[in-house]
This record gives sequence, C-alpha cells and structure tokens, in this order.
Amino acid sequence: MASNLDIVDDADGFPYEDPTSQGLYLFRVAGLSTTLGYIIPSVLYILRDCPGWSVDEEQRTVVLESGQTIEERSAAIRKTILAMCEKECFSILKGWRDETFPVFGPGHEIVLHIERCACPLFGVVTYGVHVIAYVPAPADDGAMKIWVSRRARSKQTFGGMLDSTAAGGVASGETPLSTILHECNEEASLPSDLVRRNAKAAGAITHFYVRDRRSGGEVGLLQPECQYVYELPVPSGLVCKPNDNEVEAFQLLTVSDIVEALARREFKPNSALVMLDFMIRHGVVTSENEKDYLEIITRLHRRLDFPLR
Amino acid sequence: MASNLDIVDDADGFPYEDPTSQGLYLFRVAGLSTTLGYIIPSVLYILRDCPGWSVDEEQRTVVLESGQTIEERSAAIRKTILAMCEKECFSILKGWRDETFPVFGPGHEIVLHIERCACPLFGVVTYGVHVIAYVPAPADDGAMKIWVSRRARSKQTFGGMLDSTAAGGVASGETPLSTILHECNEEASLPSDLVRRNAKAAGAITHFYVRDRRSGGEVGLLQPECQYVYELPVPSGLVCKPNDNEVEAFQLLTVSDIVEALARREFKPNSALVMLDFMIRHGVVTSENEKDYLEIITRLHRRLDFPLR
Repeated sequence: MASNLDIVDDADGFPYEDPTSQGLYLFRVAGLSTTLGYIIPSVLYILRDCPGWSVDEEQRTVVLESGQTIEERSAAIRKTILAMCEKECFSILKGWRDETFPVFGPGHEIVLHIERCACPLFGVVTYGVHVIAYVPAPADDGAMKIWVSRRARSKQTFGGMLDSTAAGGVASGETPLSTILHECNEEASLPSDLVRRNAKAAGAITHFYVRDRRSGGEVGLLQPECQYVYELPVPSGLVCKPNDNEVEAFQLLTVSDIVEALARREFKPNSALVMLDFMIRHGVVTSENEKDYLEIITRLHRRLDFPLR
Repeated sequence: MASNLDIVDDADGFPYEDPTSQGLYLFRVAGLSTTLGYIIPSVLYILRDCPGWSVDEEQRTVVLESGQTIEERSAAIRKTILAMCEKECFSILKGWRDETFPVFGPGHEIVLHIERCACPLFGVVTYGVHVIAYVPAPADDGAMKIWVSRRARSKQTFGGMLDSTAAGGVASGETPLSTILHECNEEASLPSDLVRRNAKAAGAITHFYVRDRRSGGEVGLLQPECQYVYELPVPSGLVCKPNDNEVEAFQLLTVSDIVEALARREFKPNSALVMLDFMIRHGVVTSENEKDYLEIITRLHRRLDFPLR
C-alpha cells in the first residue's frame, strides 16, 4: 500500500534542485529574461535545428527568437510543433487537440499560447480545475460522501483510473470558473446554475510532475501544474452521470473508501493530490494520524519557479 | 491599504535564496549533517567565544559540539543561552519563559530542546497552533461570523493587535491537539469537551519570518514557522471570553470585517496569514478577485529547508 507521501511523489517527482545541474535547459522568448519552462535534452536536440530558435550552451537557454507579440510568438511555436508532428519526432504529439494553453510571464501577462499536448515538450506550467462534489454529512451524524468518477478506459491518459467529480484544463480564453461550469456539465451532467450557485473555491495545489509510462508519450517530459480546487456540496438526491465519453461511471464514496483507493494508487496522480488536499482540509488526514503531515502540505503547494497565472 | 501579497510579505520576508549567499551560517549539532537553523552574523559573533561550539568559516557552519543525547544537547544549549543572558547580549532573552520548544531532525526525531525566547537566535523552526472559532452561516442565507481576539496591550509582542480565536506555541511534550485544548480554554474560555468534539484540523501554514521592530528584541533574527490550523464551528449562543491576561477582548466579526482589518494591517503578522488561508479555504479570496492567488497560496505553504516535526 502506498503512503500519502508516496502518492505525493507520484505526481511531484521533480527534484528540489537547480534545473541546469539536472541537465535541463531554460525555455525563454526573445526580449524577456524570465524562464517559462524547462526543456529536456532530447527536445533540445530537435529544437536546435528548428528555424526561429537559438540555443546558448553556456547560459543553458533555448530561446524562441521569432515573434514580438503574443500572436506572433504563438504562431511561431505552432509552426515548430507542426514541423515536429510532420517528422514524427515525439509520440506525445499524437494527442493533438487543436486547443491551446496560455503561458504567463511577469505581471500575469500572457506571453504565448501553446498547443495543449505540446506543453510538456517545453516544460511550461499548465492550469487545471478540479471539482469535488460531496453530499454533506446529515445532521444525524452520518458521514459525508463524495462523487468520484472513473475515467473511460479509452482515454489516452490514465484510462480506467479514479478521478475527481469533474476536472479539466483551463484552455486559452477560459478562466477557472468558466472551466468548472462546462466541465461539471460535460463530465457529470451537473446543471450550470447549481454549480454557479454552490461551487466554492477552496484553494489550489501546485506540483511538478515528471511524465512516466502511465501518462503516455515520452517518459521524462516535465509538467509543472497548478490545479484550482472547488468544492460543491450537492443534495443527497442528486446523481452525477456521465454526459460525454470521457467518464465511464460515477460512484458515491465515503471518505474511508477514498483513503483506501488512494493507498491502492487507483486515482490519477494529480487527482490523488487534490483528494489528499481535500482530506487535509476536512480534518481526515491530520498531524495525529500522518507523520509526514507538514511535508505533504508544503509539497502540495510547491513553489514553481516560473511566473504564474 | 495593504494588498494580500503585502500581508504575506509581512510574515514571510525571508528571501528565496541560498542562505550562505545571504551571509548566514548553518546551525548544526555534532554528528548530524542536517542544518537545523540559520544564524545571523551578530549571533555568530557571540557563539564563537562560547565553550562547546565550533565555527567553520569555509563551510559556514556553527556546530554545537557538546552532547550526544537530547538531554545533553539541551543542557549544553541552555548553558550557552544562560551565559548570554548573564552578559545581556540580546534583549530578546528578556522574554525568558522557562519553557522549551523541540527542534526536529531527520525522521521527525527530536534533536534538542531550546528555551522558547531563544529560538530566533538559532533560526530554528517553531510550531504553533491557531484555532478559528466561527458561527456557521444560518440556513436562511445569513453570513458566517468569526470570533477574533484582541491581544492585551501589555503583551511583549504585537500588543493590541488582532489575533485568531486562540493560538499558542506547541511546547516540548505537547502536540498540536493538546495545545489547542488548553489554549482554547485559557484564552477564550472554550470548554475542552466542545473543542475536542468539534475542532477540525484544516491544514497548516508555513512561512519564514524575519523579526522586525514590532516583534520586539533584535531586528533581523530568523524565525521559520509552522502553524497548525484548526476550525471550530460554535453555536450562535456561545460567547468567547478572555480567561487570562493575554487577551483584551473578543469580537464576532463578519468575513468582510476581517478582510478590511487585514488590509489595515490590524492582525498580528502570522495570524494574518492564518486568516488569509481561512479566506482562501472558504472561497472568500478566489482566483477571480485576487490576482496573486497562486503566488499567495504557495507562499502560505512555503517549503522550509529544515527537517520538520
């Protein structure tokens, strides 16, 4: 059985060390001295020959030289990614969705947009939302229950694993709030007015995932992530049902069912962190029953050394 | 008016940089390679002449050489601190309470105990608890209210400032839970059975405070801190009352009263972080209304580069 700290390690495997001493390169854009992501050598090897890029071995930077506006930079990186697709450089690009994620610079300003599936090639921060719908404990002292989804087995990443009630990436043009409204509807058939009225922001988790075999695509690609967390109390009569082909089924689980499923590593890694954070916020995992309580809490809110949204 | 990020800076002013490049020394004990705290040059200057200590300028370490057990190390450091008191080296030692705090090493093992008021001389992590008692929003859609204390003006630190409902340090021999039980009783007259039944652990915040004028004693001493946070829903009829001379009075405030008091910097710095964390957990401060939302969340759970409890 996995400990809670093992579960954190699963989704937060990036070492707390200087990235260049780990052999990584710093992704930047011309005219901006801020590092936007970390690039691994196998990606550098390809970018080195792409037009519009420069590599400085001494500074260990990989700079997108083309473009001075958001639109120009986004078009330039899209061109690079499309060329990579054509040459079939990376299997991760088979996940092309024609949906972009924004990359932020200083002052929360967007620097460029990158095709979603290509983000791990540049090691940029991506943003997601997770909604945990729960039936509050009844007044007669029963237990709280939580709506947990099982991902469709056909999904390209983490098929068949347990997940939050609804979750999704915050794509370009979206906000965390707009994203939860449509994800709750698409994934769990939850009406937007109920979500809008009752969903409560409850913080965020941040972690630095090193992609492994389960995530599909190349192993070792870097994925620093922020998950905005929302809680949604729902009446006991309400039933979450799949509304698209992303979810196989829903289950209404007790807190102890979830603690056991976490220990069996049945949750998708980043969703496991969201669940663990929920358990800490609700006094299920405490300093009395978890020896690594403080370490887990700081890891779940890890500082990412990039400008954030 | 202070922004939420200003409030974080007030209690988390230590730079995210290598401590030795900041001119600091690493506090260690003989036989253990782990750094337990950071020592500033004015303290080093005194320790250099104290028996039982060695300084390595190249490694920038200050090592307590005396003692091989918890008891021996604790006695050795107590002797050093008493000698400092006698010579009146540091005004912070006027706060002597004859109460110790444990310092943890790898594997959550206690390495030694240090007199409470002397901890900032060695820059070791200290642990506190904060309880936020609140009257939940009534079903007819009223607002939640929170019991906030005002510190006695006579207190040696942060006299007259606003504070959580009850708070205190986790002294040697105590646990977070045992500490909240007695602090809730001593500071707010809350009966232990109510606290034991209803208090819910809700996580912890971690931050790195650089002592300033308001904290009394020498400016610039270092205080990495963990605050275990508990929430305590209380019935609307219950009244918090001071039970010792540490608290001047209690007020039952709305969330917006508290947001305003935070912006006026009326809260004690670390209690302000606890309140801010509460506001984030309860969906008052959100990504929609706080541009530095993610930065604030990671700062409130800052990684401290020492072994933790």
